[in-house]
Amino acid sequence: MSAPTQNAGRAWVFGDDIDTDQLAPGLYMKRPIEEMARHCLEAADPQFAGSVGQGDIVVGGRNFGMGSSREQAAQALRLLGVSAVLAPSFGGIFYRNALNLGLLALVCPDAGKIAAGDQLALEPESGKVHNLSRNETYACEPIPAHLTEMVQAGGLVAHLERKRAK
Amino acid sequence: MSAPTQNAGRAWVFGDDIDTDQLAPGLYMKRPIEEMARHCLEAADPQFAGSVGQGDIVVGGRNFGMGSSREQAAQALRLLGVSAVLAPSFGGIFYRNALNLGLLALVCPDAGKIAAGDQLALEPESGKVHNLSRNETYACEPIPAHLTEMVQAGGLVAHLERKRAK
Repeated sequence: MSAPTQNAGRAWVFGDDIDTDQLAPGLYMKRPIEEMARHCLEAADPQFAGSVGQGDIVVGGRNFGMGSSREQAAQALRLLGVSAVLAPSFGGIFYRNALNLGLLALVCPDAGKIAAGDQLALEPESGKVHNLSRNETYACEPIPAHLTEMVQAGGLVAHLERKRAK
Repeated sequence: MSAPTQNAGRAWVFGDDIDTDQLAPGLYMKRPIEEMARHCLEAADPQFAGSVGQGDIVVGGRNFGMGSSREQAAQALRLLGVSAVLAPSFGGIFYRNALNLGLLALVCPDAGKIAAGDQLALEPESGKVHNLSRNETYACEPIPAHLTEMVQAGGLVAHLERKRAK
């Protein structure tokens, strides 16, 4: 298997129903996003924000990102260096915001098979999640190329600005 | 309760894992969308496409719209007059396509409580689904006003064209 070097990272695993208030705590909504990001997911894992590395991947349970439509939920993850979120299902608006803000989000029914610290390599266009630590591959919903390009460009606005500049 | 007259309609209920090939059958992918729409969901309910009325609401189970990214899945529902889709979870790309193409999609954990033929009234911005037939109200994920405006305008492209014309 030739795993892509892009979109590879270490898994941080969370349970079901992680809502936007856990991702972007209301207490810090009026603070700069950099400060809020330091509290991202602290209710579920106090070590997360301080320890997550560039390119790491968040693995959630059902309904990841449910709750409010606040864009800071996806922004905080990106600011911490998270490259992608995998979950069996997402809050719809969080999913939409994530792609628009340059955070890859993949619907992956088998996300529950991934353990904390597993090394993952993602092929979003072909709909594959390689678990390099367990030598397993899971199916995820494929993302069309025009959307992965938008995500890689940093999101919708950055993508449109780049296209306009050409 | 003063239910809104907009976004009110009769429920058509489907099970889990309705995929885009059931919504937009591959057999008719090269035919005009009007023809394909007449086969929308026929594998699950042969009466659906011929009987669904303007403004009716499709209620799905888990992972509604999973599968491919084909936009015809949402287009076919709109063409048949469907005003909204409710489900406990969606395929991510279908969800994204639906809003962009002017079809309201609401994440509703209690969608399973709705029976075929129930009269529903939706308040997407406050996140409420009123079941008028059973005098019940279910929570759904709220949709921000700028997105409901986009959906009501007929989707992303129509919305942008309208803004540009102003």
